[in-house]
Amino acid sequence: MTRWISFLTDYGLADGFVAACHGVIAAIAPEARVLDVTHLVPPQDVRRGAAVLAETVAYLPPGVHLSVVDPGVGTGRRAVVLVTRDRVFVGPDNGLLIPAVEVTGGVRVAHVIADPRLWRHPVSRTFHGRDVFAPVAAYLARGVPAAAVGPPLDPATLVRLPGPVRRRDGDVLVVEVLTVDGFGNAQLAAGPGDLDLSPDGGVLLEAVGRQHALWYTGAFADVPAGAPLLFVDSVGRLALAVNGGSAAVRFGVRAGDVVRLAPVPPPQTPGRGG
Amino acid sequence: MTRWISFLTDYGLADGFVAACHGVIAAIAPEARVLDVTHLVPPQDVRRGAAVLAETVAYLPPGVHLSVVDPGVGTGRRAVVLVTRDRVFVGPDNGLLIPAVEVTGGVRVAHVIADPRLWRHPVSRTFHGRDVFAPVAAYLARGVPAAAVGPPLDPATLVRLPGPVRRRDGDVLVVEVLTVDGFGNAQLAAGPGDLDLSPDGGVLLEAVGRQHALWYTGAFADVPAGAPLLFVDSVGRLALAVNGGSAAVRFGVRAGDVVRLAPVPPPQTPGRGG
Amino acid sequence: MTRWISFLTDYGLADGFVAACHGVIAAIAPEARVLDVTHLVPPQDVRRGAAVLAETVAYLPPGVHLSVVDPGVGTGRRAVVLVTRDRVFVGPDNGLLIPAVEVTGGVRVAHVIADPRLWRHPVSRTFHGRDVFAPVAAYLARGVPAAAVGPPLDPATLVRLPGPVRRRDGDVLVVEVLTVDGFGNAQLAAGPGDLDLSPDGGVLLEAVGRQHALWYTGAFADVPAGAPLLFVDSVGRLALAVNGGSAAVRFGVRAGDVVRLAPVPPPQTPGRGG
Repeated sequence: MTRWISFLTDYGLADGFVAACHGVIAAIAPEARVLDVTHLVPPQDVRRGAAVLAETVAYLPPGVHLSVVDPGVGTGRRAVVLVTRDRVFVGPDNGLLIPAVEVTGGVRVAHVIADPRLWRHPVSRTFHGRDVFAPVAAYLARGVPAAAVGPPLDPATLVRLPGPVRRRDGDVLVVEVLTVDGFGNAQLAAGPGDLDLSPDGGVLLEAVGRQHALWYTGAFADVPAGAPLLFVDSVGRLALAVNGGSAAVRFGVRAGDVVRLAPVPPPQTPGRGG
Repeated sequence: MTRWISFLTDYGLADGFVAACHGVIAAIAPEARVLDVTHLVPPQDVRRGAAVLAETVAYLPPGVHLSVVDPGVGTGRRAVVLVTRDRVFVGPDNGLLIPAVEVTGGVRVAHVIADPRLWRHPVSRTFHGRDVFAPVAAYLARGVPAAAVGPPLDPATLVRLPGPVRRRDGDVLVVEVLTVDGFGNAQLAAGPGDLDLSPDGGVLLEAVGRQHALWYTGAFADVPAGAPLLFVDSVGRLALAVNGGSAAVRFGVRAGDVVRLAPVPPPQTPGRGG
Repeated sequence: MTRWISFLTDYGLADGFVAACHGVIAAIAPEARVLDVTHLVPPQDVRRGAAVLAETVAYLPPGVHLSVVDPGVGTGRRAVVLVTRDRVFVGPDNGLLIPAVEVTGGVRVAHVIADPRLWRHPVSRTFHGRDVFAPVAAYLARGVPAAAVGPPLDPATLVRLPGPVRRRDGDVLVVEVLTVDGFGNAQLAAGPGDLDLSPDGGVLLEAVGRQHALWYTGAFADVPAGAPLLFVDSVGRLALAVNGGSAAVRFGVRAGDVVRLAPVPPPQTPGRGG
């Protein structure tokens, strides 16, 4: 049976950090297969790492999910193993793993990583990905039980990130931009049920102090080239887009910005959203 | 026998999109091996994706070639499977696959992707890479015949990109820049037979309204450091380069630009090309 | 037994160059597993490629280490295979491989790559990674002995890069910045024994004409957010960092810069280093 380890970090691809972790895993569990999620999480951006992992995890083969965005490395922050119904998450206790754990059924058992016999020595103070997390993930992929990494911990004590902004203000949805992808689409912290939308209706967007009229529709190509739209993205969230362009550029929005959306009739002149 | 799936997209490496597709493939065809061609095709740049795939495909192991640069996702554009002598191409019917198909012997059989039993459900309207193309590629790698994906189509109806500019104007070759690589070398849509070149002769380049005297030679290091040259690149095309520098920067050229080349005696003063 | 090939280049990830090499390897040694170190070495930056390889190699599984940063491709520069105790390095004879060879025990046997039966034909003059180095690496991974690639060479004749600056000037360490990583940490060409440091003491840094007071400590989080520090990095070298920030930005340093460090009492006001 194939043992899968998914791997997400903020290490970038220009240094040898990711390869060093791959090498450590290969030495311990050469039969495991490593599936890189991304290593381009912006440095130390735990919130962004958590969002990418949570969006992707349901499409990854069940196995060990090694995820390291770890600004607290070398301090007293805990390192943890969180077991869900059919997956095992390995990483720092800083909120990174929680959203992905929740979309895969929630924590059943949690352990603190504490037994140095499963680590690589000497353990550096700044690269626990290589010396602690990767070897622990490799041993788990080999079948070492989660309980072997250290004592159990109460899941209620796990560090959680504050949730993104999402509230109703009358008819208006006030909502945070979760992420901006490589196409410039801006994913919002809400689903289609959070706003009273009419199919093929319109939406008034207020972002960065300016208003824009958008179509609400299902695919970029439903609107004219260059026209802005609100759509339900591939993981079920509302997202801002521009057909053939970048919503991030058009609206000037970035992850963390809060925007306002209100249902309106559809724009009269397609493409004049801005 | 190893089943190979090559994989090219414009998804970028900063999101989890590529990993989601890898995960979908792993669930259907865990024994398949995925070879990433590139995921850094500029967003929705079908022409660039087609050029990279066509240049690379002859060096990839025969198998399934999954390629998705798909600005028409969610519209009526067809999704297709194109079978050549020893390879199977999977992607949108927008011209992306054609140049690679042609360098590997041409289409023998073509099918429209139509049978939803081979897709991942629910199918999003914006991420057919994950929900349609990747699962179809995985089933093909597992040995499902191409005919199972949907009805045959007439290859003459496949969408083709307009060919790049390449014409003679007397002694002068008028030719389009196909791609600029990471070293700044500018590959032209012509081979050495398209211009009356003398070995170790010179070439007069006219690009972006300026003229430059270049050497025509076989290797960067045949000319002095900083000197410009025309050479035959690793896939047999004429290309502009600068020894130790970037032709794209020196000449200000980008993919899609049209330049003029004329044979002349070699430059008297090496390195004074600009 | 798994045969590992590690792979480092300056080819970038936006073209098909890396994939072409993967494909050539797959055709010759389909059972080999390729572990990408990085392909984002800045174009033709042999020194940077050598540094990344040397830092990473000890964490990679023993096997074949294919490394190509090759500004001299197409000239008379030699192509070599260097055998250490348990590893085989393949690449150009331009100094790229030497630091990694030295951290893994030094050269035992060296050979010039000369037998064209192990190459891919036709051999382009500009892409020996695909046509010479990758196939040779694949044959070595398959078990072909190093002696088959060509005649032995005297290791004393191998090209070596000049060493980085590292000298004492009284109490002061004058030292070169080796690399800057994706977090903006600046690694120095020295270890903690090269300066008379007190644990939890201070360091006066002079860089780019300005002075900065730093803490010398073991982890970023030992100092306040935004405070600069000198620490021993994950491969045992002194490195400049900023807790939650970028030392490269704060101090304006780049790889190749020479800085001065002197032991001083620890800063009185944490975080006022700049």
